[in-house]
Amino acid sequence: MNFQYWNRRMETLPRDELEDYQLEALRVMVERALRTPFYSRELQKAGITGGASIKSLDDIRRIPFTTKHELREAYPYGMLSIPKEDIVRLHASSGTTGVPTTIYLSGEDIKRWTSFVARSIYATGCDKTDVFQNMITYGLFTGGLGFHYGAEEVGMLVIPSGPGNTAKQFQFMKDFGTTVLHATPSFLLHVESKMREEGVRREELRLKRAFAGAEPYSEDTRKRIEELLAIDVFNSYGLSEMNGPGVAFECQAKNGLHIWEDGYIAEIVNPDTLEPVAEGESGELVLTILCREATPILRYRTRDLTSFYTEPCSCGRTHRRLRRITGRSDDMLIINGVNLFPSQIEEVIMAIKEVGNNYLIQVEKEGALDRLTVKTEVGPDIFMDDARPLNALKEKIRRTLQATISISPRVELHESGTLPVSEGKAKRVIDTRPKDI
Amino acid sequence: MNFQYWNRRMETLPRDELEDYQLEALRVMVERALRTPFYSRELQKAGITGGASIKSLDDIRRIPFTTKHELREAYPYGMLSIPKEDIVRLHASSGTTGVPTTIYLSGEDIKRWTSFVARSIYATGCDKTDVFQNMITYGLFTGGLGFHYGAEEVGMLVIPSGPGNTAKQFQFMKDFGTTVLHATPSFLLHVESKMREEGVRREELRLKRAFAGAEPYSEDTRKRIEELLAIDVFNSYGLSEMNGPGVAFECQAKNGLHIWEDGYIAEIVNPDTLEPVAEGESGELVLTILCREATPILRYRTRDLTSFYTEPCSCGRTHRRLRRITGRSDDMLIINGVNLFPSQIEEVIMAIKEVGNNYLIQVEKEGALDRLTVKTEVGPDIFMDDARPLNALKEKIRRTLQATISISPRVELHESGTLPVSEGKAKRVIDTRPKDI
Ligand SMILES: [Zn+2]
Ligand SMILES: [Zn+2]
Repeated sequence: MNFQYWNRRMETLPRDELEDYQLEALRVMVERALRTPFYSRELQKAGITGGASIKSLDDIRRIPFTTKHELREAYPYGMLSIPKEDIVRLHASSGTTGVPTTIYLSGEDIKRWTSFVARSIYATGCDKTDVFQNMITYGLFTGGLGFHYGAEEVGMLVIPSGPGNTAKQFQFMKDFGTTVLHATPSFLLHVESKMREEGVRREELRLKRAFAGAEPYSEDTRKRIEELLAIDVFNSYGLSEMNGPGVAFECQAKNGLHIWEDGYIAEIVNPDTLEPVAEGESGELVLTILCREATPILRYRTRDLTSFYTEPCSCGRTHRRLRRITGRSDDMLIINGVNLFPSQIEEVIMAIKEVGNNYLIQVEKEGALDRLTVKTEVGPDIFMDDARPLNALKEKIRRTLQATISISPRVELHESGTLPVSEGKAKRVIDTRPKDI
Repeated sequence: MNFQYWNRRMETLPRDELEDYQLEALRVMVERALRTPFYSRELQKAGITGGASIKSLDDIRRIPFTTKHELREAYPYGMLSIPKEDIVRLHASSGTTGVPTTIYLSGEDIKRWTSFVARSIYATGCDKTDVFQNMITYGLFTGGLGFHYGAEEVGMLVIPSGPGNTAKQFQFMKDFGTTVLHATPSFLLHVESKMREEGVRREELRLKRAFAGAEPYSEDTRKRIEELLAIDVFNSYGLSEMNGPGVAFECQAKNGLHIWEDGYIAEIVNPDTLEPVAEGESGELVLTILCREATPILRYRTRDLTSFYTEPCSCGRTHRRLRRITGRSDDMLIINGVNLFPSQIEEVIMAIKEVGNNYLIQVEKEGALDRLTVKTEVGPDIFMDDARPLNALKEKIRRTLQATISISPRVELHESGTLPVSEGKAKRVIDTRPKDI
């Protein structure tokens, strides 16, 4: 394979130089953090009074973790490190509680963020000859504008279509020869279903690649999208607290996400003990941003579960790779005492070829017990009026789930295109059990 | 007043130098246009074979007009002047017919567009200390991204909130001290109504200015918004065929929109004869873009009706000023043989203080006659359960319309907040008369 690099020097920097770079950048970040109300208090408590307090990269463990809860408490300006008049962008996510978390960016911050997104896009083999259809919400959400700026930097033709309106999306794909899509995995599956419905053949399109992010999804879902659309799908990882897209991305080798270690320090910890996990083991990703002056955030607990690959990547980049995110520690379902991630269910059902492109997981209380129902659409070749094969398929799904992850849910089959579709992050789990507070 | 200039030299260039600049730029545009399929045909027909065919600015009249219809016919690539791989952005508007019109931009085009928007914003007195809430749709529509890039260039803090969700808009205004809004005039009126509804006092906010564009509106509507919110409202003019916002904008003198003549050549013609109108007279604005390489468009018939101010502006800028757009030549209503623009009705009713912030014009066929109904909301202090003052108000509206524009419509009064609100361009006219084709 012919690998290409946006910034060859930084992407292939020898590990020791990369770590020297990180140490220097971390010291700068600590200085910046000390200028914020939140960290000036928290770092002082931990005895960190300046960048010089950090003697080695290991000293990062002297810095306390930062949580989403603390970001909310610091709203609106507790994490701001520069004069207000020097801020040029704000991104906010409201989450479920109503109190937003806010990230501020300086002009320099936007340039650096953009360069990490451009690097990510370029690493997948794209270049200025590509036509990029950005089917993600623009505005306060970082996914739309983040990719928009990065793709523009690469010099691709950017179609800022946003999500929704698949008929118009297909028209753009045809008329402008779109080669690259960006969407949530669930919207990509939806697009594929709609293509069949509207009689768009993939030979009419010039699609080559898609970037999928913003929600966890399984390797089987990736394979399914790749086969149906005859494209390469690359995993994108980012979160608004760390700017948004451009934190970690798959390269052409498509085997794990390089985390850009000149922009971020990544740790993986046991979410209970908060101790580092052994090399290659799974745990919660903790990130420190090195590439932002306006809002320094140190040791942020992402809640995302992953692990490092231990072997180097064939592309020659020295930045370590993360395994695909298997879920968020707070997504975990406890069903009758058994721990379970929605992604585990997805992995099983998406590998069954008769299963369609959309599914939903429902959890209810039935007496003292939790009841799990898996609703999935069936593939387009399956007719809903013939009970026998449908019952056989139900039983197959149930047995496979039983055999692989030891749960035996109710299974409901739905006609292709009838389960609700979300334009943003898919809402795959409906848990109606009463919450203990 | 203390006027400020983003690019003092270009904004105050003596007229003769400005016209020399335009002539040179027009020649370059003709060369670019000749590289497009559409203009290579049309310009050859007119005997224009290169930039040298244009000897003086008056020679622009040798160039044929371009219409929206021709832009549609040229879809997708008939107006493209650079290699596809050099395009980095596409904006499309679908209009009512379904066939989009498409504008392409190179990286250089985006930079120049951004600088005209930055110049426009700066001319209103804003600077990097301002907080700018961009309540306009992002994506394929040029208003959102156009202002976003321009405001970022000025260094203002940009909140990419997009339209909708007034509760969240108010939270941002309060928490981040928003000083400048961008929205359609109708959305600004809606925001003001919602403020009263939700008990947000304007003293809690730091609003100083708003930019209003994307739909024609009257001077009385401006005054109403300014008084209710205690801010300055500046008129913004642009259209996607000419990049979008940043074509013409009001300066701090707030008395007509400077058209940036180093970016555009403006003519005003009689829409029937297509001959230039006399100086200061009203007619259809025709624009030639000078600041774009990817999609050169010459003598574009905007359909927008306006006129030039003849006296110079107190700000010292040499670029001529347009009067506010009174309507589009294709917006004109013919009611029982009388020509009428919706803006004329708006002007009358918005000057009546008991009238609320939203209105709708309805035209129906009743037998052989056209029937016009004006529906308006009433102000918040007027109660719908007291018939006498309501009838008096109806009669006042009817009589004032009769006296000023010689129409005597039915008048319907609606409670504040009950007429439909649009987040984009307001739909103010509902014409259900059968169309002669
Ligand atoms: Zn790699
Ligand atoms: Zn002026």
